[in-house]
Amino acid sequence: MKNLNYFFYPKSVAVIGASGKKHKIGNVMMQNMIKAGFKGKLIPINPHEKIILGKKCFASVTEAGKIDLALIAVPAGIVPKIIEECGEKEIKAVIIVSAGFNEVGNIKITKELFQAMQKYPDMRVLGPNCLGVLHVKQGIDTMFLPRDRLGRTPDGRISFASQSGAVGSTLIDWASMKDYGINKFISFGNALDVNVTDLLEYLNKDKKTKVICLYIEGLEHGRKFLEVSKKVSKQTPIVVLKGGVTEQGKKAAVSHTGSIAGEARVIKAAFKQANMIEATSFEQLFNYARVLSNEPLTKGKKVQIITNGGGYAVLTSDFLIKNGLELGKMNKKSFDKIRKVVPPHAELKEVIDLTGDATTKMYKKSIETALQDKNIDMILLIVLFPTPKLEKEVVNEIIKQHKKQLKPLIVVSASGKYTEKQKSLMEKEFVPTFSFPRSAAQALKALYDYSFFKGKVKR
Amino acid sequence: MKNLNYFFYPKSVAVIGASGKKHKIGNVMMQNMIKAGFKGKLIPINPHEKIILGKKCFASVTEAGKIDLALIAVPAGIVPKIIEECGEKEIKAVIIVSAGFNEVGNIKITKELFQAMQKYPDMRVLGPNCLGVLHVKQGIDTMFLPRDRLGRTPDGRISFASQSGAVGSTLIDWASMKDYGINKFISFGNALDVNVTDLLEYLNKDKKTKVICLYIEGLEHGRKFLEVSKKVSKQTPIVVLKGGVTEQGKKAAVSHTGSIAGEARVIKAAFKQANMIEATSFEQLFNYARVLSNEPLTKGKKVQIITNGGGYAVLTSDFLIKNGLELGKMNKKSFDKIRKVVPPHAELKEVIDLTGDATTKMYKKSIETALQDKNIDMILLIVLFPTPKLEKEVVNEIIKQHKKQLKPLIVVSASGKYTEKQKSLMEKEFVPTFSFPRSAAQALKALYDYSFFKGKVKR
Repeated sequence: MKNLNYFFYPKSVAVIGASGKKHKIGNVMMQNMIKAGFKGKLIPINPHEKIILGKKCFASVTEAGKIDLALIAVPAGIVPKIIEECGEKEIKAVIIVSAGFNEVGNIKITKELFQAMQKYPDMRVLGPNCLGVLHVKQGIDTMFLPRDRLGRTPDGRISFASQSGAVGSTLIDWASMKDYGINKFISFGNALDVNVTDLLEYLNKDKKTKVICLYIEGLEHGRKFLEVSKKVSKQTPIVVLKGGVTEQGKKAAVSHTGSIAGEARVIKAAFKQANMIEATSFEQLFNYARVLSNEPLTKGKKVQIITNGGGYAVLTSDFLIKNGLELGKMNKKSFDKIRKVVPPHAELKEVIDLTGDATTKMYKKSIETALQDKNIDMILLIVLFPTPKLEKEVVNEIIKQHKKQLKPLIVVSASGKYTEKQKSLMEKEFVPTFSFPRSAAQALKALYDYSFFKGKVKR
Repeated sequence: MKNLNYFFYPKSVAVIGASGKKHKIGNVMMQNMIKAGFKGKLIPINPHEKIILGKKCFASVTEAGKIDLALIAVPAGIVPKIIEECGEKEIKAVIIVSAGFNEVGNIKITKELFQAMQKYPDMRVLGPNCLGVLHVKQGIDTMFLPRDRLGRTPDGRISFASQSGAVGSTLIDWASMKDYGINKFISFGNALDVNVTDLLEYLNKDKKTKVICLYIEGLEHGRKFLEVSKKVSKQTPIVVLKGGVTEQGKKAAVSHTGSIAGEARVIKAAFKQANMIEATSFEQLFNYARVLSNEPLTKGKKVQIITNGGGYAVLTSDFLIKNGLELGKMNKKSFDKIRKVVPPHAELKEVIDLTGDATTKMYKKSIETALQDKNIDMILLIVLFPTPKLEKEVVNEIIKQHKKQLKPLIVVSASGKYTEKQKSLMEKEFVPTFSFPRSAAQALKALYDYSFFKGKVKR
C-alpha cells in the first residue's frame, strides 16, 4: 500500500510556479492554501520573485527548507525537470496540476515525466492534469479555482476521488452550497503514479472516512481495482459514478484523461460483483453517500412516512414502492400515543399525516414512537417548513432524534430559500435531507441494499 | 367553457375571515395580497373587527361594495352560509381555502356546500381545501403561506394547476428560488366546481400561457379531461405529473383530496393518447416546461455540446444518447471558423471542448457557428463558471445568442453559490439552465418528442 499521508497531513507545502499576479494559477493556489487556514509552512517557489503574498519566495525547491508536499503549476514542458529537483530533495508527495500530457496526446513529454518519476520510487505523485487535494480539516486546498467562484465543503465523513477535475470540482461546489460534509477530496487526473486503487486502499484505512465516492471515466488496471474494491466494500461502502458509458461517450473519455472507458456493460457487471454501489447521476452519488455515512444500517424495508403535506406523501409512497421498499404500519398502541397530541383530522395509517397544522410536538411524538415501534425499520420525515404553525424548533428536535441513531432517519422537504436554510442546519449535524421524494427513496434503497449485503437485514 | 377571468383579473377582492392577528390565515392572506402589489380594492370581512391592516372591515359581503373575487377562510361549518351570501351578492368568483370537507370524509357538510353552490350557477368556485391563485403580474396571491417562508415566482410563460396545495406550493417555492417564471398558478383542491379540465380549457386560450403544467392525483371526470387534453395539447404543450400511482399511493390519494387515483397503467396510457408529456418527478415537470415554453421546436435530434469541462461533456453525451438523441458534428468550414479563436489544445469533434481556458469570445464564436451549421439541430452549452479565465460577460453573451431563437439552446452548469447566481440571471431572461446533464438531456428529449408530434422534425 502506497503511503499517501503527505498529501493530506503535510507540515510544509511548496507551490512551484507561485505568482504575485492575481488570476495566475500559481497565485490562486497560494491564496487558497492561506484561506483554507493551512497551519504549516507555505513556501512559494519562483526564480523571478522575492516575496509572494507576504511569504519569502525561493528560486527552486533545492534552496528552500524541508518540504513535505510540492504543488507543481508550471508549463508541461518543464515538469520533468522540476520532478527531478523534487526527487533529489526527497520530497514525499507531489501534485502536478499542469495539463498538456497524455490527455491531449502529448506522449513524448508524458514519457519524459514518467521516466523522471521512476527515478524516485518513494516519492508519491498525484496527476498530472488534476486539481489535487481538498482536506478541509487540515487546511489543504490545492484546487486552483477561486474560492469566491467555487465553494468549499464543510468537514464531514465522505471522501471523494475523481478522475475528472471539472466534474470533481463542480460536485464540491454543489456540496458546499448544500453544506454536505466532505472529509477528503482528491482529483487524481491522469494517474501516472497514484491511481484510484491506491486511493481506495488508503481511504479504507482512514478512520475519518465513512464512505468512499468515486467518479471514474476509465480504468487502466481494471482487475486490480476490482480485486481491491471487493475487499474494501466489505468494510467501507463505495459509491461509484462512471462517466463515458455509451459508445460516443467513450470516444470523449478516451481523449479526456487518456484512459479507456471500456465496455459499459462489462464494467457495470464488475461494479456489482465488487459490491460497489453504482450511482447513475451526480445527485445520486452524494445522496447515497450521505445516507450511507450518516445512518445506521437497516434491519428491514418497512418505511414510516411522517408528513405535514398529504400530496407529498402520495408521491413519496410511490417512489418507495417503486424502489422495492414498503410502507410500515405501527401497532395500535403506537397510534394511541400519537393520537393524544395530534388534531382529530390527522390521519394515522401507513402514512402519519399530521396535516398542515403540524407542530414540533407532533413530529417529536411521532418520531419517538416510530423509533420504538418494532414494525418500523426506517423513518422518512416530510417537513414542509412554510406552514405557519410549524415552529423553527422542529429542526433542533429532528437533529436530536437523529442523533439517537436507532433507525435510519432522513428528511424530505422540497426546496426554497427559507427551506434550504433549515436543511443546511440539519446537514451540518449530519441529518440527510432531500428536495425530492424520488431521490430520498432511492437513497433508502441503497442503504437497504448495503445493509442486506452486510447481513443486517432480518426480514 | 367556464369564465375564470375573475380569478386572475379581479378589480376588487374580499377576504372573508380576515383577521388583525398575525399568523392567522386570514391575516396572512391580507398581507400577501398587499405584498403582491394588488392594485384593486382589497376588502377585509369580519364581523368582529373595524379596520384590518389599514383597510376598512365589513361585517359581511352584503354590506361591502362591489366584489369580483371573494376569498373564504372560515371554518368549514359556516362555509355554505357564506357561499349563499356571496351568491346573493352576485360575486363572480370565490376561492374556498377552508379544509374539512370530503377530503377528510366530511360528506354532510360537503353536500351542504354543494347545494348552496348550485343555487348560483354563474358563480365560479375554486376549492374547497386549496390555496387558490398566484398571478404575479396582477398582484393576486391568495396563498396563505407567509412570503418569508415560501417564495413567490417571477412572471413567466408557464402556468401550473395543482390538485395538492402542499405539492403545488412547494413547487412554487422551488421555482422561486431558481427564478423560474410562472404566469398563473392555481391550486384547485377538491374541485367541487372549477376542475382541472376547466383550467386546461381556460389556460389554452390564455395568450400569456405557453405551457400548461398539471399535478394531479386522481380524476373525477376522466373521459372529459382526456378529450379536452387531446385538443389542447395540439395548441399548448401539457406537462403532467401524476401522484398516487402505486396501490398504496392510491390509498393515500383517496383520503387526500377525496378523489380516486385510478389504475396507474390506464391513466399513463391515456396521458400518452392525449399527447400529454408525462413528467415522473417534480424536477422534470418544470424542466420540461421551461424548455417547451422558451425554446423553438427542433428540426432533428442532433445536439451540439459546447463545453469548458471535459468530464461533464462525457456524462452529458451519455445521457443524450440514452435519451435517443445524437451528438451532432459540424462541417469542416465551421470547425475552421472556431479554430481561429480557440487554443490549440481545444478539441473540435462531436463535442466542442474549449477546455478550462475557455473565454466568452470562444463561446460566442462556437454558438454562432453552431446556430448556422446545418448539421446541428439543438445546442447544449456546458459552462463551468468557476474557471478563472471565464469572464462574467459570458452570461450576457449566452442570453443574446438565446434571444435569436434560431435553435433550441440550453445551459448545463453544475451548481454552487456563485454559479446559481449566474443561472438566475439567465433564467430571468428565459434561458433554460440545468444543474445536471441527465435533466438537460431528458428535457431536450421532451422537446424533440413534442416537435415530432407537431410535425416539425424533418429527419
